[in-house]
Amino acid sequence: MIGVSVFGSGRMGWIYAPILQRSSRARLVSVVNPNLSSAEKLTAAHDGRALADPDAALGDPDVGAVIIGTPTTTHLELIEKAAKAGKAILCEKPLDLSLERCDRILEILAEHPVPIMLGFNRRFDPGVAKLREAVAGGAIGALNMLLLTSRDPAPPPIGYVRNSGGYFVDSTIHDIDLACWIAGERPAAVYAAGGCLVDPEIGAAGDVDTTMTVLRMPSGALVHVNNSRRAVYGFDQRIEAFGAEGMLQTENRREDNLLRWDGGRTEARAPLEHFFLERYADSFVHEVEAFLEAVETGAKPPADQHDGRRALAIALACERSRREGREVVPDYGD
Amino acid sequence: MIGVSVFGSGRMGWIYAPILQRSSRARLVSVVNPNLSSAEKLTAAHDGRALADPDAALGDPDVGAVIIGTPTTTHLELIEKAAKAGKAILCEKPLDLSLERCDRILEILAEHPVPIMLGFNRRFDPGVAKLREAVAGGAIGALNMLLLTSRDPAPPPIGYVRNSGGYFVDSTIHDIDLACWIAGERPAAVYAAGGCLVDPEIGAAGDVDTTMTVLRMPSGALVHVNNSRRAVYGFDQRIEAFGAEGMLQTENRREDNLLRWDGGRTEARAPLEHFFLERYADSFVHEVEAFLEAVETGAKPPADQHDGRRALAIALACERSRREGREVVPDYGD
Amino acid sequence: MIGVSVFGSGRMGWIYAPILQRSSRARLVSVVNPNLSSAEKLTAAHDGRALADPDAALGDPDVGAVIIGTPTTTHLELIEKAAKAGKAILCEKPLDLSLERCDRILEILAEHPVPIMLGFNRRFDPGVAKLREAVAGGAIGALNMLLLTSRDPAPPPIGYVRNSGGYFVDSTIHDIDLACWIAGERPAAVYAAGGCLVDPEIGAAGDVDTTMTVLRMPSGALVHVNNSRRAVYGFDQRIEAFGAEGMLQTENRREDNLLRWDGGRTEARAPLEHFFLERYADSFVHEVEAFLEAVETGAKPPADQHDGRRALAIALACERSRREGREVVPDYGD
Amino acid sequence: MIGVSVFGSGRMGWIYAPILQRSSRARLVSVVNPNLSSAEKLTAAHDGRALADPDAALGDPDVGAVIIGTPTTTHLELIEKAAKAGKAILCEKPLDLSLERCDRILEILAEHPVPIMLGFNRRFDPGVAKLREAVAGGAIGALNMLLLTSRDPAPPPIGYVRNSGGYFVDSTIHDIDLACWIAGERPAAVYAAGGCLVDPEIGAAGDVDTTMTVLRMPSGALVHVNNSRRAVYGFDQRIEAFGAEGMLQTENRREDNLLRWDGGRTEARAPLEHFFLERYADSFVHEVEAFLEAVETGAKPPADQHDGRRALAIALACERSRREGREVVPDYGD
Repeated sequence: MIGVSVFGSGRMGWIYAPILQRSSRARLVSVVNPNLSSAEKLTAAHDGRALADPDAALGDPDVGAVIIGTPTTTHLELIEKAAKAGKAILCEKPLDLSLERCDRILEILAEHPVPIMLGFNRRFDPGVAKLREAVAGGAIGALNMLLLTSRDPAPPPIGYVRNSGGYFVDSTIHDIDLACWIAGERPAAVYAAGGCLVDPEIGAAGDVDTTMTVLRMPSGALVHVNNSRRAVYGFDQRIEAFGAEGMLQTENRREDNLLRWDGGRTEARAPLEHFFLERYADSFVHEVEAFLEAVETGAKPPADQHDGRRALAIALACERSRREGREVVPDYGD
Repeated sequence: MIGVSVFGSGRMGWIYAPILQRSSRARLVSVVNPNLSSAEKLTAAHDGRALADPDAALGDPDVGAVIIGTPTTTHLELIEKAAKAGKAILCEKPLDLSLERCDRILEILAEHPVPIMLGFNRRFDPGVAKLREAVAGGAIGALNMLLLTSRDPAPPPIGYVRNSGGYFVDSTIHDIDLACWIAGERPAAVYAAGGCLVDPEIGAAGDVDTTMTVLRMPSGALVHVNNSRRAVYGFDQRIEAFGAEGMLQTENRREDNLLRWDGGRTEARAPLEHFFLERYADSFVHEVEAFLEAVETGAKPPADQHDGRRALAIALACERSRREGREVVPDYGD
Repeated sequence: MIGVSVFGSGRMGWIYAPILQRSSRARLVSVVNPNLSSAEKLTAAHDGRALADPDAALGDPDVGAVIIGTPTTTHLELIEKAAKAGKAILCEKPLDLSLERCDRILEILAEHPVPIMLGFNRRFDPGVAKLREAVAGGAIGALNMLLLTSRDPAPPPIGYVRNSGGYFVDSTIHDIDLACWIAGERPAAVYAAGGCLVDPEIGAAGDVDTTMTVLRMPSGALVHVNNSRRAVYGFDQRIEAFGAEGMLQTENRREDNLLRWDGGRTEARAPLEHFFLERYADSFVHEVEAFLEAVETGAKPPADQHDGRRALAIALACERSRREGREVVPDYGD
Repeated sequence: MIGVSVFGSGRMGWIYAPILQRSSRARLVSVVNPNLSSAEKLTAAHDGRALADPDAALGDPDVGAVIIGTPTTTHLELIEKAAKAGKAILCEKPLDLSLERCDRILEILAEHPVPIMLGFNRRFDPGVAKLREAVAGGAIGALNMLLLTSRDPAPPPIGYVRNSGGYFVDSTIHDIDLACWIAGERPAAVYAAGGCLVDPEIGAAGDVDTTMTVLRMPSGALVHVNNSRRAVYGFDQRIEAFGAEGMLQTENRREDNLLRWDGGRTEARAPLEHFFLERYADSFVHEVEAFLEAVETGAKPPADQHDGRRALAIALACERSRREGREVVPDYGD
């Protein structure tokens, strides 16, 4: 049993706490939030002690690992503390909003080599994982194209958008990570286009809500990503891998398996699962289990700080490409 | 080019005339209806001479074949005239409403052996034909079960119902013919249940509008047919063949290949093709072509008077089974 | 927390024990099997004490409920013991193989009115439950037809078949229960046909492996059930409810949500979930939770001894109908 | 009846001749090919006189319209001749490979304003036409994204590739035309990426066989096109229109409507229609009918020389973008 402290009691904390509670591998020891009453609500609903100070959590010998679900700007400091305290770390994406600070994190972890995993939860979705395994196993021959569609049901509050680092860094970064993971390579150059078609406030904040991205891979494979902050029909999450010997597609998941036919003379399938809490509920579980297993066995976690930095470098190159109308080579720092 | 006279200028006449007009094998020579103005409407829209008297059509040396699309009660007399005149015959189903009169038709045709084909048009639907070919070719091994769903979009006028010979003879007969044709055998015994759930007038006329039929085949294969006079979502036509080594299903056909997703959060496929004129448009074409080819080549038509009598015997057994609550052995007359 | 003793450590015991272990409502206190080493294997893997004697389990004040997953012939005796001990009971289907013994169980329970629930797990499948709720809520208007397809991937060992009470009592009984539950009525008469097309040993044992059943409901609704002991493509579980205002269908569930396209030029969806352990995994969980909730709250369990007796009466009538080639009225005993 | 002369008796001639033969609006008067024996094969199979000289066809007063299905380099000269002869013109795409020569064609047609239509046959596919009509009618609100997938089953002979003008001009041009037609606007800028992943000979010829294209529309809508010269599972033709209020997708068409389930435990749908001759068979018919109707009624043909020039300008900009790694503004010449 690994004692875990969860840093942050916002949206991510409420995802991780019940997963830890149900896991046979872990025990929720503490929840940390400078706003103690927020942490207390989470521990009351689940387990563990509420703490205001991360150092208190890190000083607890019962804590073997921390999950960092705090605002992105705090990741560096918390990773540094946790690494120095020798705790294993599961950190939400993005690692940080700046490559310089990512490099600082890499240095810290080089010096204090604790196990660290990045929360790219979609890798742990059973359908996505099967698709990747099939591609890697040669089921469709050489990969020629990869198409990722990821559209949210509705835009987030504008306050969230303002602190998100921009749409590519906040959201496309998931698709970027999946693309590199599935293709087994990172782009030689990227191009992105985007605009504000959903919510003028997003445009006013200097961000976009509708984008298309192309990643040119060294193998010649081409990757397309499209993102929208609003799909009125629900959370649309699809991947298509097209190769020399075939094609694989993941279907959207639905609320149930009923087909309905009515006097409108149409067949209707059930709505899509509403948003990421529903759609990726089991991917979060598998993610936490993969982290705990890596901690237990000492194996390399399936997504680490280097993956986090790589995805950020690509997302930032997308943003720059969008502004400059040309291909951009990501700054991989190596 | 085969000169064809169409007997009847009602619903079936209006189906056959344009098909003949477009066929490179045939020419529409005349349309016969004692109500001459009805025949004239059809010839005006298409081709040929309007005639009131079938004998005039049969005496015309340009006529090589007749298509009988008149009321069922006239089939015997018209078949007799046409057979004696040596004309090839395509006759609508059912052959007749009585087995005795069917037997009389068989005798006439034994004496005057002209080519005759029964209008079981669904055999000529491309999907149905492929399914039958696959079953016959062993694609699913020994046939264990056959399920036929056939539901109309809306009940016909009560006047039609009253002269239809009953639901089993009017409609289930199509499914019965398909079942025997696909299975390659005829039932040892049948059971049917039914009631009046759609239109009380149908019940008042002594008929049913909702039925389930079971055919027990000598091989042990079991056939299920379900029929309804009203499916609010459209004309529902499906077949499922289940065998020792697999299953085949024909999907319903739709008005187009669009998927629509909207704010109701559902995916909707296009409506089904509305009714038999749309759904079986190409099966009627293939049926006429198959008839013309048989006439040209002298080959045995793919559905003949014996198939017509067999289907009627089974349909009548269904009606009797429904009334008596027990299995009935059809009177095959052999 | 309800302490539960599981009677039987065969297939059903291995289903129930892990569910109890994970439930927040229950604790697995003991597992009972006269063959103690069999019980010990289950408790070693999960929880609780292994006992050879049911009386030991029933005498334990920590036990509030029992789950009976033993051979059918032992149900009466164990229900009697448990009822007299005042324990709540979840009993596997069928209740018994004889109506007389069912009536004896009903008497015992009338005298010792403990909460009892029958293990008709398919009612608790989310898709089936949604379909029933929609039908009951009028989503398709008056129910006209109900079609249930239930085919196993492969026949069970012949020893299982011999003690099963026959295919209708062993397997069709699930569909019979669902049909009555969904339609909200019980059949006025039943008809069944069947044969041995899968495994000659089943025929030699006097049983059938391929059946079609028709239930005639008092409302006029017609129910079709088809069963096969072998569908080479997997466990095929579908329901179609056809009504005056629409149709609902449950789709089969699949192992994953991938579509695969290859050089064979076909699109293939993932295989069906293999058999009932996989397909109904969550229905068993929901079933146990529904039982525990009924025990906790004192509410009437959602399927009880009367549902068990009704389903058996109908299944026995099916078997008799099959032998006699006529409709049979079930002996409802009221 | 419009007398039509078909210029060219290659692949396109063999598509158009039978369509004309079956049309009630047209008569195939002549087929022109300097290689007379090639023209004779076509007239022998269908109708009309074989001619070596286009002037002979154009001098024939029975000819009211010409269909130009000759190599692209001959379009200018034949359009000039036909326009001067006052004949209506249906010309295959692309109009020409050079914008300068397109402009020359525009001048000729300005001087000799005969009806001219460009053979963008995919506009006439029933599913595509319905999708466009729905988008234009506001069914999905403002268009946010348009995704077009167009993949051939296998690469053409290398000789064809060498004279094709490059993949964008030869093939993507269809998708470009559809995108502009559906969106109702033309791109402000384009980006394209591509490589040679299918056939090294194509790369050696300086062309690509795998591409992704982004069109940035003035409204902010984003268009993605992906093309491949080889999809082993067949001719893959899909469009997805995503808007503020919903989404529309055209499904691929299949050879039949059978679902096949076998011991491999998978459900397989029928293969896709093989290639454009099959997939777009009815779009060619509708295209010819639309042309003939425009000629008959004097209405503006649904796709004309300006659409042809626009599509070429965009395709050439794609090729340039691919080489330069940056967005390119098409040279619309206005």
